[in-house]
Amino acid sequence: MSTTPNPVIIALDAMGGDFGPAVVVPAALKALQFFPELHLILVGDETVVGEMLRKHHALNYPKLSIVHASQIVGMDEKPSQALRLKKDSSMRVAINLVKEGKAQACVSAGNTGALMATAKFVLKTLPGIDRPAIIAKLPTTKKNTKVRVLDLGANIDCTPQNLVEFAIMGSVVAKVIGNIPEPSVGLLNVGEEEVKGNDLVKDTSAILEKYSGINYIGYVEGDDIFKATADVVVCDGFVGNVMLKTTEGVLKMLTKYVKDAFTQNWFTKLSALAVMHVLKKIGKSLDPSEYNGASLLGLHGIVIKSHGSANQKSFLTAIREAVQEVEHNVPAKIQDGVAELLAANASNISNPQSSEES
Amino acid sequence: MSTTPNPVIIALDAMGGDFGPAVVVPAALKALQFFPELHLILVGDETVVGEMLRKHHALNYPKLSIVHASQIVGMDEKPSQALRLKKDSSMRVAINLVKEGKAQACVSAGNTGALMATAKFVLKTLPGIDRPAIIAKLPTTKKNTKVRVLDLGANIDCTPQNLVEFAIMGSVVAKVIGNIPEPSVGLLNVGEEEVKGNDLVKDTSAILEKYSGINYIGYVEGDDIFKATADVVVCDGFVGNVMLKTTEGVLKMLTKYVKDAFTQNWFTKLSALAVMHVLKKIGKSLDPSEYNGASLLGLHGIVIKSHGSANQKSFLTAIREAVQEVEHNVPAKIQDGVAELLAANASNISNPQSSEES
Repeated sequence: MSTTPNPVIIALDAMGGDFGPAVVVPAALKALQFFPELHLILVGDETVVGEMLRKHHALNYPKLSIVHASQIVGMDEKPSQALRLKKDSSMRVAINLVKEGKAQACVSAGNTGALMATAKFVLKTLPGIDRPAIIAKLPTTKKNTKVRVLDLGANIDCTPQNLVEFAIMGSVVAKVIGNIPEPSVGLLNVGEEEVKGNDLVKDTSAILEKYSGINYIGYVEGDDIFKATADVVVCDGFVGNVMLKTTEGVLKMLTKYVKDAFTQNWFTKLSALAVMHVLKKIGKSLDPSEYNGASLLGLHGIVIKSHGSANQKSFLTAIREAVQEVEHNVPAKIQDGVAELLAANASNISNPQSSEES
Repeated sequence: MSTTPNPVIIALDAMGGDFGPAVVVPAALKALQFFPELHLILVGDETVVGEMLRKHHALNYPKLSIVHASQIVGMDEKPSQALRLKKDSSMRVAINLVKEGKAQACVSAGNTGALMATAKFVLKTLPGIDRPAIIAKLPTTKKNTKVRVLDLGANIDCTPQNLVEFAIMGSVVAKVIGNIPEPSVGLLNVGEEEVKGNDLVKDTSAILEKYSGINYIGYVEGDDIFKATADVVVCDGFVGNVMLKTTEGVLKMLTKYVKDAFTQNWFTKLSALAVMHVLKKIGKSLDPSEYNGASLLGLHGIVIKSHGSANQKSFLTAIREAVQEVEHNVPAKIQDGVAELLAANASNISNPQSSEES
């Protein structure tokens, strides 16, 4: 499927997530079939990973290697603890491989906080970027159109300058990976005219309105996300995380409603058979595995976070996301994009408060 | 349907919302059929309202009166402007009727910000309540179980004390209207262990943990709302509004997906016919009109906010909510509940920071 001319080497945290190697190993094997230029490094306990490879009749599989790591970061472990005490964790070693240039990206389904803290510590942020952010794509009502939203939980307390950086990074990603020439950027806010947001969004908006090079379209509301009102939606990590979890919650609730309604009795079960093709089609549009693979943006290196509960198909989507970012050389492009925008706007952002007007 | 022994008098802002009297008048007529003890006062331009009544052959309809108001608050009008310049608006006059004791509640589909500001100005907050909040019910995966969430947008910037007040009010409402003996209260937060929230949620949690009389169960995440993990979910108005709009957005997106999938061709259209009964059942569980009618809690009086785009059925649900609150005498019970809780916890809340422990 891919046409990459050069090998793409990606390190996988084989022990991360709810299922560890049981999901990561088969997903890796599948990925190698998809992408002819892909090389994968499975990072984790070599005995456990080897055993899983044996189970899949894939010992000595081509373009697949193991790098041993003796520790595992727990899903509930504090990032500070993981940083201090888990220096030989599968997560840390996978990120180290990126740092050392032995891999061009890494993918982990492990603890988000630990992943972010470790990635930031090991890889460091790009020049001009104070805080990395988590970005992901969400479905919309517009055909073949996804919306990119950030930050989804890396930064709980943000400054206007942080949000402006998120807008810059989101804009660059939508342009270089999403192939959108001038991606529109919206700032997530509440709907009521009078109170129109807190100081954070007001101050951020004041900066973005004067920012050249970003197609800022102003405030958007929660429901606008799914209408594709903007190509990129920016918010702080607290709001973004609640928004993402709310979306997951509503989708799961609906899935349950549909399932319950169609399995109520033999008649509804028959009805379900009659419309299985339609239900499958709807399910596919909303399949969480199609939306797996959030990126940690703003680092010297590519780090993809898979959902902790990802199945094989979902984890494969996360690997695909990593391949795309490698092919598009996303960190370098973000670095260039950020440098360009910062230079073009150097005079505008010195005193954002001066433009405070209702 | 109702068994109220005494008349319930409710003032309706006949001009509010996207459709004004075109929705409010027929909904009012329907409500009067439902609730034998109900008296309704239609507040608005008497010519326009009269004309609409004539259209519905309901001039001189029993238990229905008109109170004239010469102005209308625009949907985008600033609350401060509405307060200053629209002293004879249908919204203001309806709230005045509650203040004067001529109505026991009012319902408006108008501008939320203006409604909140006017209600707060005219009715004043209950003793011990600094800021009123907007509360509404949302569907969950648990059968016949709804979750109450507040604040949904009245208070953009909150203190821990504000959130504690929301927890108290939500708890009282779930108990007296929802008939839940010891309603569980969750605080909306993000999922990552390490960063576990901003100072606002941490400080609020520290207070609630020591608060007697509230069944506080700790942090919940966005997806927990729809799992009915808690009976009441508390958050600030910014987060609550984004959450609510996100929920609406996802539901609308799914409705569109289902509609598109079933109307694609004659075969899928036939399939839709085969499962119409199931689709209708699912639609009913999620029907926005079943969830209309948010309450402005914490005031000396009952004010119900209907969705601006509410249709007749939705507006009727909002009227029903008002009737319930009148029957349960909600403001008095909140006042009692708040007083009781404040007295019981007087010593605990003097210095919440002293208990800061991770």
